[in-house]
Amino acid sequence: MGYRLPEHFVTHCLRGAGQVFFMENALSGVCFLLAIAYASFDTGNWSTTLGALLGLAVATGTAYLIDSHDSAIAKGMYGFNGILVGVAVPTFLVAGPVMWVYLILGAAVSTVVMDAFSNVVSKNWGVAASTGPFVLTTWLLMLGAYAFSNLPIAAMGPPKLPLALANSAFMGLSLLDTLVVVCRNIAQVFLLGNAVSGVLIVIGLLLESIPAAIAAVMGSLVALFCAMLFGADAGAVKAGLYGFSPVLTAIAVGVIFMQTGPKVLLFALLATVFTVIVQGALDTLLAPVGIPTFTAPYVLAMWLFTLPKAQLQPHPHAPSPDAKISKIK
Amino acid sequence: MGYRLPEHFVTHCLRGAGQVFFMENALSGVCFLLAIAYASFDTGNWSTTLGALLGLAVATGTAYLIDSHDSAIAKGMYGFNGILVGVAVPTFLVAGPVMWVYLILGAAVSTVVMDAFSNVVSKNWGVAASTGPFVLTTWLLMLGAYAFSNLPIAAMGPPKLPLALANSAFMGLSLLDTLVVVCRNIAQVFLLGNAVSGVLIVIGLLLESIPAAIAAVMGSLVALFCAMLFGADAGAVKAGLYGFSPVLTAIAVGVIFMQTGPKVLLFALLATVFTVIVQGALDTLLAPVGIPTFTAPYVLAMWLFTLPKAQLQPHPHAPSPDAKISKIK
Amino acid sequence: MGYRLPEHFVTHCLRGAGQVFFMENALSGVCFLLAIAYASFDTGNWSTTLGALLGLAVATGTAYLIDSHDSAIAKGMYGFNGILVGVAVPTFLVAGPVMWVYLILGAAVSTVVMDAFSNVVSKNWGVAASTGPFVLTTWLLMLGAYAFSNLPIAAMGPPKLPLALANSAFMGLSLLDTLVVVCRNIAQVFLLGNAVSGVLIVIGLLLESIPAAIAAVMGSLVALFCAMLFGADAGAVKAGLYGFSPVLTAIAVGVIFMQTGPKVLLFALLATVFTVIVQGALDTLLAPVGIPTFTAPYVLAMWLFTLPKAQLQPHPHAPSPDAKISKIK
Repeated sequence: MGYRLPEHFVTHCLRGAGQVFFMENALSGVCFLLAIAYASFDTGNWSTTLGALLGLAVATGTAYLIDSHDSAIAKGMYGFNGILVGVAVPTFLVAGPVMWVYLILGAAVSTVVMDAFSNVVSKNWGVAASTGPFVLTTWLLMLGAYAFSNLPIAAMGPPKLPLALANSAFMGLSLLDTLVVVCRNIAQVFLLGNAVSGVLIVIGLLLESIPAAIAAVMGSLVALFCAMLFGADAGAVKAGLYGFSPVLTAIAVGVIFMQTGPKVLLFALLATVFTVIVQGALDTLLAPVGIPTFTAPYVLAMWLFTLPKAQLQPHPHAPSPDAKISKIK
Repeated sequence: MGYRLPEHFVTHCLRGAGQVFFMENALSGVCFLLAIAYASFDTGNWSTTLGALLGLAVATGTAYLIDSHDSAIAKGMYGFNGILVGVAVPTFLVAGPVMWVYLILGAAVSTVVMDAFSNVVSKNWGVAASTGPFVLTTWLLMLGAYAFSNLPIAAMGPPKLPLALANSAFMGLSLLDTLVVVCRNIAQVFLLGNAVSGVLIVIGLLLESIPAAIAAVMGSLVALFCAMLFGADAGAVKAGLYGFSPVLTAIAVGVIFMQTGPKVLLFALLATVFTVIVQGALDTLLAPVGIPTFTAPYVLAMWLFTLPKAQLQPHPHAPSPDAKISKIK
Repeated sequence: MGYRLPEHFVTHCLRGAGQVFFMENALSGVCFLLAIAYASFDTGNWSTTLGALLGLAVATGTAYLIDSHDSAIAKGMYGFNGILVGVAVPTFLVAGPVMWVYLILGAAVSTVVMDAFSNVVSKNWGVAASTGPFVLTTWLLMLGAYAFSNLPIAAMGPPKLPLALANSAFMGLSLLDTLVVVCRNIAQVFLLGNAVSGVLIVIGLLLESIPAAIAAVMGSLVALFCAMLFGADAGAVKAGLYGFSPVLTAIAVGVIFMQTGPKVLLFALLATVFTVIVQGALDTLLAPVGIPTFTAPYVLAMWLFTLPKAQLQPHPHAPSPDAKISKIK
């Protein structure tokens, strides 16, 4: 019950930030928040940083309110979806009073959805909900924005029928360009197109897990190679949009949810390559409704690749199997 | 086994009508049928009332035929999806011989889908299938109609890419207008844009559960307020199209599936507000394929908000957990 | 463990071909491969036959590598999704080096997805994964192809908004035409528009199960009748595109997953008719993203119609309930 004391609230929130990359570490969380703040500093748009802090606090606080499992709250399991909702909403919608209401509602709902997903994918299927609740909640918020005139869209869409990409016009990348894209791939997990943010995130990973940091960089490289092999859109590849989901898949399948070893690494490689394909696929699928994929390619690939062994593996990133609203009255 | 005697068939059907609003009460069902009939009288189009009766009878009869669980049949658990299929088909398709065949097939399938859903969402996940089977079955019927020339479309679509709503042109509502919309929100659960039908439904609710009637009216008001706050399309709001799913969410989360109390009421409020967002989201999502959302916003929100506590709550609206086709040969 | 010896590999692959039609019989598999080869001979395009063999070998081999359950491998449970991936990719994409890499990746992933699906739909819900893994994997590959310039599309799309079919212009079919369509409906399970291939498939069925062969032909006839009754597009009907999923539903629900008997036959008839509606529905649903339905109408209908009785029926076509990657390290 000590966990519920207000003095731990900030720690639980910071761990929530860390859990976006599976790190139950408040210092990692600080690094990730610095990554977001640096991108805000760079663009001059601080609404994403404010949104991140607000989303983190609201989602974690909602978990207290609906009596989610104490130990899961303490691990930061209710912050990582909320912080992503908080970054995404001001990235894609125009800031304004109604948008902030919308963001707060979304962050609160992300905690409910986390408990809902945990009840299905964790308890019944034995895999982690991970950022699935963020994806579902924010998809609904973004789709809803098209229907609501007081929530004008800043940067997504317009909805259009997919067109087969004729020519990616990829001319090869210099070593420097490659490094920049590798970092951007990592930064885009937080929806940041900023290479320095990517470096800050890798530092945050190193504070807690060297294998996770290595998996992030390797996953980023594999994704870049595959995107070029398949001939993905050069602009999207350079912006890091083909890499963020594979980065998460590489860490999740290679390090977090399975016991690292030669066979698992090969398995994680296949999962990472497949995530690039899923990224292209979901870009096509969502084109007619004009919303971003968010981390859905990672979530889908991670589920498909961890479900086969679900019952044999530890799930440090997942909430306790009996996580639930236990005392709502 | 006495339940299966033909003389109970009409009672089981009427309870099925009542269960659209979670009422296991044949008299409530009579009121709801009167609400449908009144709307038919008002428009002069009796095919929806005929469809309702046919859908109710076919779906309930199919449950007998495939040996669904007796006590679930007796509670009306196989009628509420069928009656909604029966109202929806003649609302959106042109009446004709093939349409009636289509309606009968759809109503029969809705019972199979009810047993299928129950096996997944009720037995495995511990939440109610509710109108999910109606939504899935009727979505497939409506999507199919685009592909079948003998099933001409009366009133839906055309498929189009979503466009961000620029201006809802909402000028405020008079008290009378507000009352009318509050009633229409309730009537639209049965796809009726008729305020008097809404009043008849509230009377049906009062016959069985005063809290449910209060939740319906409060949910309707909350939905109207949120739709105006977000700036939803004024025409759709006035027609009651932003309110019917939130009305069901308010009753389901606030009264039926959870123990009413201060925290649950706050939880139900969040669920109801979120349902308005989901309504806008699904309107956007389905625009390119030109079909209505039906009660999908309610079903999705209800699942997300009842899954967290699924194992701790009674499910009076759900079929018995062991409902199944037990003796098919 | 003897199953794992290389000398059984070919047998396991051939059984995998047979399992597309639920036949755990290597000779049936040979007939089905001949059906594919005949169509290649007829069109002069051998890439589909090569893809079939490659997909079959890669998917089955991947099952060995990820330590899937031996007895499931021996039954051919990891070949039938791979062979379908292998036929589909060169049918819809232009052959080339990147396409072959794509096909091999897809076939390998189909085995992972098979184990993932088995963990959810077989272990939790008690129904067969069947060709669900093929559908999901190949949908992702096809959607991805729109985003990748090195994977040009040969024959699908273009994405378009669905338009209500005004007139199917169906003039009735001669007896010969009817026979040809009945055979094409069966051949299209392997994406072949060739009536002779359909005959070869029926021969393959007769080698193992006369009831299955009868169900295939009856399902094909029922589908043709319903497609004409509803007024489906005449060209699609004649090409066999309204029949292949109903054929599978008829065999699955009428013979394989339930105990054949009068009530089950009526139930299978309803399932088969409903599959025709789902075919039209999914054609509409997928039009905006320009991908084929594959066997999704069958998979959806089969799940909905076998879930109600899941716990009471044998599942000879499904992998062992404890199939899993058991020794990945």
